[in-house]
Amino acid sequence: MSENAFNKDCRKDVRAVHDAMDVLNGKWKISVIAVLCYSKERRFSEILSDIEGISNKMLSKELKELESDRLVKRTVLDTQPIAVSYELTPYGKSLKEVIMHLARWGSEHRQHIIG
Amino acid sequence: MSENAFNKDCRKDVRAVHDAMDVLNGKWKISVIAVLCYSKERRFSEILSDIEGISNKMLSKELKELESDRLVKRTVLDTQPIAVSYELTPYGKSLKEVIMHLARWGSEHRQHIIG
Repeated sequence: MSENAFNKDCRKDVRAVHDAMDVLNGKWKISVIAVLCYSKERRFSEILSDIEGISNKMLSKELKELESDRLVKRTVLDTQPIAVSYELTPYGKSLKEVIMHLARWGSEHRQHIIG
Repeated sequence: MSENAFNKDCRKDVRAVHDAMDVLNGKWKISVIAVLCYSKERRFSEILSDIEGISNKMLSKELKELESDRLVKRTVLDTQPIAVSYELTPYGKSLKEVIMHLARWGSEHRQHIIG
């Protein structure tokens, strides 16, 4: 493959990876999506308990950004007291494969570090 | 799936995704790995030109971290002037599938935003 062809191909994919990471940036966003991959819908308090170490404030910030990026849908439930549930949009669900591969690599990685 | 079983399964995978993102954190690391996925080995200046927007200082920081995480191998070449090349370790190459899925999602995402 000539250097130019390499550059063109490589740059296109590197930019695509960069685009993906622009949306998924930050330490928690991918974990929130991973939780929602597992359930039809999840309440704020449930997501908070599913992700070790995330703060209330950080979770609401990440959910707001995911909502504005149209990856997550927020529904206000007609309950007493009022509750809010979150689910992946069809577009958000398109991340399932990426999440699955990250999870697989992450668990193999843990073995690699622990040895 | 009972709530407990859900929690156990979900938490294990969410932690695995979190472990993966701990290694791949930051805006540029995945782009550096993506470039090295494409080539047997790449020089510093070549990587710098392959990734739009990354600074010299940031690239050397990310390469140092990737080296200490044993994802990248650094080789000093016996040339005049001396040059340094970088390549993925076998362990680093285990990220190829994650990178491929991120690139695919990223390019579809670009269509989704541009509409």
